[in-house]
Amino acid sequence: MTERQIDWAPLLAPRAAAIHASVYPKFGALPEHPDVINFKGGAPAAECLPIAHLRHSICRAWQVEPGVLYYEESEGFLGLRELIAARMARRGAPVSPGEVLVTNGSQQGLELIAKLLLEPGDRVVVEGPTYFGALQIFDIYQATYDVVPMDQDGIDPVALEAALKREPRPKLIYLIPTFQNPAGVSLSPERRRAVIDLSHRYNVPIVEDDPYGELWFERDLGPLRALDPDVLYLGTFSKTLAPALRMGWLAAPPELMQRFIDAKESVDIQSDRVLQRAVAEAAGGGWLDQHLEQVRPIYRSRRDHLLARLAEEMPPGTRWTLPGGGFFVWVTLPGGMSADALLHRAAAEGVQYYAGSSFYPDTCQRPTFRLGFSTLPEERISEGLARLGRVARDIG
Amino acid sequence: MTERQIDWAPLLAPRAAAIHASVYPKFGALPEHPDVINFKGGAPAAECLPIAHLRHSICRAWQVEPGVLYYEESEGFLGLRELIAARMARRGAPVSPGEVLVTNGSQQGLELIAKLLLEPGDRVVVEGPTYFGALQIFDIYQATYDVVPMDQDGIDPVALEAALKREPRPKLIYLIPTFQNPAGVSLSPERRRAVIDLSHRYNVPIVEDDPYGELWFERDLGPLRALDPDVLYLGTFSKTLAPALRMGWLAAPPELMQRFIDAKESVDIQSDRVLQRAVAEAAGGGWLDQHLEQVRPIYRSRRDHLLARLAEEMPPGTRWTLPGGGFFVWVTLPGGMSADALLHRAAAEGVQYYAGSSFYPDTCQRPTFRLGFSTLPEERISEGLARLGRVARDIG
Repeated sequence: MTERQIDWAPLLAPRAAAIHASVYPKFGALPEHPDVINFKGGAPAAECLPIAHLRHSICRAWQVEPGVLYYEESEGFLGLRELIAARMARRGAPVSPGEVLVTNGSQQGLELIAKLLLEPGDRVVVEGPTYFGALQIFDIYQATYDVVPMDQDGIDPVALEAALKREPRPKLIYLIPTFQNPAGVSLSPERRRAVIDLSHRYNVPIVEDDPYGELWFERDLGPLRALDPDVLYLGTFSKTLAPALRMGWLAAPPELMQRFIDAKESVDIQSDRVLQRAVAEAAGGGWLDQHLEQVRPIYRSRRDHLLARLAEEMPPGTRWTLPGGGFFVWVTLPGGMSADALLHRAAAEGVQYYAGSSFYPDTCQRPTFRLGFSTLPEERISEGLARLGRVARDIG
Repeated sequence: MTERQIDWAPLLAPRAAAIHASVYPKFGALPEHPDVINFKGGAPAAECLPIAHLRHSICRAWQVEPGVLYYEESEGFLGLRELIAARMARRGAPVSPGEVLVTNGSQQGLELIAKLLLEPGDRVVVEGPTYFGALQIFDIYQATYDVVPMDQDGIDPVALEAALKREPRPKLIYLIPTFQNPAGVSLSPERRRAVIDLSHRYNVPIVEDDPYGELWFERDLGPLRALDPDVLYLGTFSKTLAPALRMGWLAAPPELMQRFIDAKESVDIQSDRVLQRAVAEAAGGGWLDQHLEQVRPIYRSRRDHLLARLAEEMPPGTRWTLPGGGFFVWVTLPGGMSADALLHRAAAEGVQYYAGSSFYPDTCQRPTFRLGFSTLPEERISEGLARLGRVARDIG
C-alpha cells in the first residue's frame, strides 16, 4: 500500500467550509455532571414510542414479494402517499398523492428544496430563532439570512415585508408556523393570511416545516398549507411515531414534483420500500389518531408542569412562551443575562439546554434558551427547574 | 384556500435544469410487448434475495431499547462499521471503523463526495461508458466530463494522463474498477498501479465505486483502495443482500471524515438505526460469506450461458466483454449499427436492454449496449438472445 499523498485542502469546494454539525458548542465545552437533567431533547418521550406496534408492523411488512426489494418508486410507496394525503386533507390541506414525495425525514425534504432553489449568496428569510438543522442545510447552500423577529403570535409581518422588499429578493421564507421550534409559539390566523399575501405579492415561496402540528394540546391549528397551495410543506413521522424511522414527506405544487422526484433519485434512489409499507400499515386504520390521543395529554401535562415550575423557580423578570403544542418552551432571562453563561453554570449543576445562540446563524450570546419538555417525567422537570432556578437567581 | 400564484420558473437555481432521472429514453419511447425479456436489470436475482434471513434479522433487531429510536450516530452504528471495516480488511483494504460512514446505498456516498468537492464547471474524469447514476449526481453539481475510453483491461492510462494534464485539472477520477457497470471489465493489476500513480502525481483523487467486487466468479480482484489509502471508496449491500435496504458505506481518509459525517447529518440526520443493527446481524458471523458462496455460481452460470448464446445468435463481427464477476456484459454491434435503433426493433419483439447512449453524458447513438444477466434464468436468456439475434441479423 502507498502512503497518503493527496493534498485535499485545495480540492474542497467552497461549500465544504460551510459544512458543520447542526448543534455545536459555540462558547466552549460544558462541565460534566453525574446526573444530567437534559432539556435538550426534541424527540418523543420514550414511553410514547410505539415500539411493539412498530415492530409488529415491520415484521408483517417484511413478508414481502421479492419485487419490493428492488429499485423503484423514487417518489415513495403509493399506499403511504395516499395515507399522507388523506391525513393532510383532514387537516384542511387537500393534496393528491402525486403531490407527495416520501423523504428520509423532513430534513431530506428541506435539502431537496435547497437543491432546487438555492444558489450561493441567495437570501433566505428565517424566523429568529429558528431550527438549527435548517440553518445547517442553508449554510451548505451558502445562503445568507434575513432573520425576522417573532413574538407570541409568530413572525412579524411588518419586518417580514421589509425583508421581502429589498432587492435582490429572498428566495425562500422558511417557517415553522405551528408550535415553533425552538420558540414554542404559533403564527396567528391573521398573520397566516398576511404572510401568504406577502409571499404572493413578492413572489417568494414559503417553506412550512410542520413536525409538531399534530401534537396540539388544545386544538389543531391546521397547516399553513391549508390556506395556500404554493406552500412547500414538510411533514414527518419522527415526532408522532419515532425519529429513527427517518420517514417524512414533502408536499409541493405539481409543476415541481418531477424535479423533486428526480432529485430524490439522485441522492439515494428511494427511501426503504419495506419500511414505507410498514409505516403505512402502522399509521393506517385510525391507529395513529388513537396514538396521538394518548400521547397529547402526556406532553400537555409536562408543559403545564414546566410552566408552573418556571413561575416558581426562575428569577423575577424571566419571561417564557406558552406553547399550544409541540415540545418546547422558549425562555428569556431578565436583565440581558447570557443564556450561554448560565448554561455553563447550570451544566455544572447537572442541567443542560440549548442556548438561544444555537438557533441563530450568528454567534452572538443571547438571554434566551430552549427548554424541551417532551422526554422528561414531571419529577425530573421539577428537579431540573429547582437546580436551574438556583443558578439563575445566584447569577442574577 | 387561495389560488396558486407563485411563479416558480425564475426562482429555480441553475442546477435545477440539470436534475433528471438516471435513465430516460434519449431516443423516444419503446414499443410494448406482452412478454418482455428484460436485460436492463442491475440487481440481484429474486431467488438470491435472502428474504427470510433478512426478515428474521430485522424482527430481532426491532427488539430495541427506546434509545435506539432517537437521533444519534450520523456516522452510523459502530457494530455495522466494524463489520464493514473487517470485511474490507479481509479484501486487503484495512480501514478503521472511524474511516467508515454508513450511507443510504453508495448513491448517497457519491452525493456526499460531490457535495464536498465539486463546484460548477469542475471537470470529472469518468470511464466511457460509466454508471448513469453517477452522471445523474455529477450533472446536478454542474460538472463537465472527461470521458476516458476503456478496453478489456479497464481505463486507458495514457488517455487518463492526457485528461489529468490539462489545466485546470479535474477534481475527481470516478472509477468502477472491478466488474465495471456497464462494461463488465476490470482494471488490470498493472493499470491499477498506473492509475494510482497518476492520481498522486496530478493530485486528483480517485473515487472507487465497488458494488460488484465481492460477486467474483473466478477470484477476488480486491479493491483499488487496497493499494491506495487516498481512494474514496463506495461500498453497498444492495447487490449482496438487497437493493431496498438502502445500506451502503463510504470509506474516506480520516481528515475528511468529520466533514462527511456533518454533511450526512445535514442531508438526513442518520440512516435507519434499527436497520443498521439488522444488517450487521444479518451479515455477521460468516453468514454473508456463505451467502455469497451460494449466489456466485448462479450468476457465473448465467454469465456463461449468456456468452454462449451471444456467440450463437449474434451476427458476425459482434463483440462482447468477458466479465469476471458482477452482472453485466457489454456488447458492440458490427458495422457501426446503432444499439438505440436495434433497441426499438428488439422491444417490438419483447427484448429490452440499456443502450450504450445511457452510459455517456452526451446524446450520441452508439453501437454498444449493456446486457444484465443477473435476474434472468437461463431459458429466458436463451429466448431473449434468440429474439435479439434474429432482429440484429435482420437489420445487419
